[in-house]
Amino acid sequence: MALGKIEHLGIAVHDLQASEHLFQTLIGQAPYKRERVDSEGVETSFFMAGNNKIELLAATNPESPIHRFLEKNGEGIHHVAFHVDNLLQEIERLKLAGFTVLNDSPKPGADGKLIAFLHPKGTGGVLIELCQDNPNA
Amino acid sequence: MALGKIEHLGIAVHDLQASEHLFQTLIGQAPYKRERVDSEGVETSFFMAGNNKIELLAATNPESPIHRFLEKNGEGIHHVAFHVDNLLQEIERLKLAGFTVLNDSPKPGADGKLIAFLHPKGTGGVLIELCQDNPNA
Repeated sequence: MALGKIEHLGIAVHDLQASEHLFQTLIGQAPYKRERVDSEGVETSFFMAGNNKIELLAATNPESPIHRFLEKNGEGIHHVAFHVDNLLQEIERLKLAGFTVLNDSPKPGADGKLIAFLHPKGTGGVLIELCQDNPNA
Repeated sequence: MALGKIEHLGIAVHDLQASEHLFQTLIGQAPYKRERVDSEGVETSFFMAGNNKIELLAATNPESPIHRFLEKNGEGIHHVAFHVDNLLQEIERLKLAGFTVLNDSPKPGADGKLIAFLHPKGTGGVLIELCQDNPNA
């Protein structure tokens, strides 16, 4: 088993609309969807870059992890998500290898995915998300 | 014109060998190359994740941008690189759109690429590299 391609790169932003304009100019095409994920306290906007996705994330409340990230770090790359074929198997593989999985049970994420996060203390400071297609999405 | 896929994600690390072990376990496969780029003050190690690359970057001297990044931020994601078909045209397009290109002339980067960087102050805090295949590599 192994991680697959970069499913998306998550970028924390203060103002979703302003950043959509910026990234539309930068990437050279418009976002293909907006989606609010209340369980994560975020509103997201997705762009394609080749066959990869860029996800802009703005906080929807002060308890949002994105709000806390922005207060500490300012705008910038928040996480990288890798595609996996079987999320439960990857969670087991990585736990056995000593990584800390922040949620043992896959949870629904944006854009039709089941997701789990690895703690950045065990991954060289990188917040890593694992994404599997959600069969119920 | 538009940016293409994520060519690689660059991650700054203190100890290249220790991080190679960590990312080999995490990604589930071995690095495919190591390369030293003296002009950038870095030693790099490359992994494939699907059709994307992960580039670990360690500083080779105290003036290295990676050394300064690690002192300020610790380990973590340093930059994201996008594939472009024509680097000179993309530099012109992005300059006209108001982005600050850190090097107007493409320069040789790791893994057979010609590269240019955009200033993160104009890109929502994200250090962005543009990569074109180097016809002379």
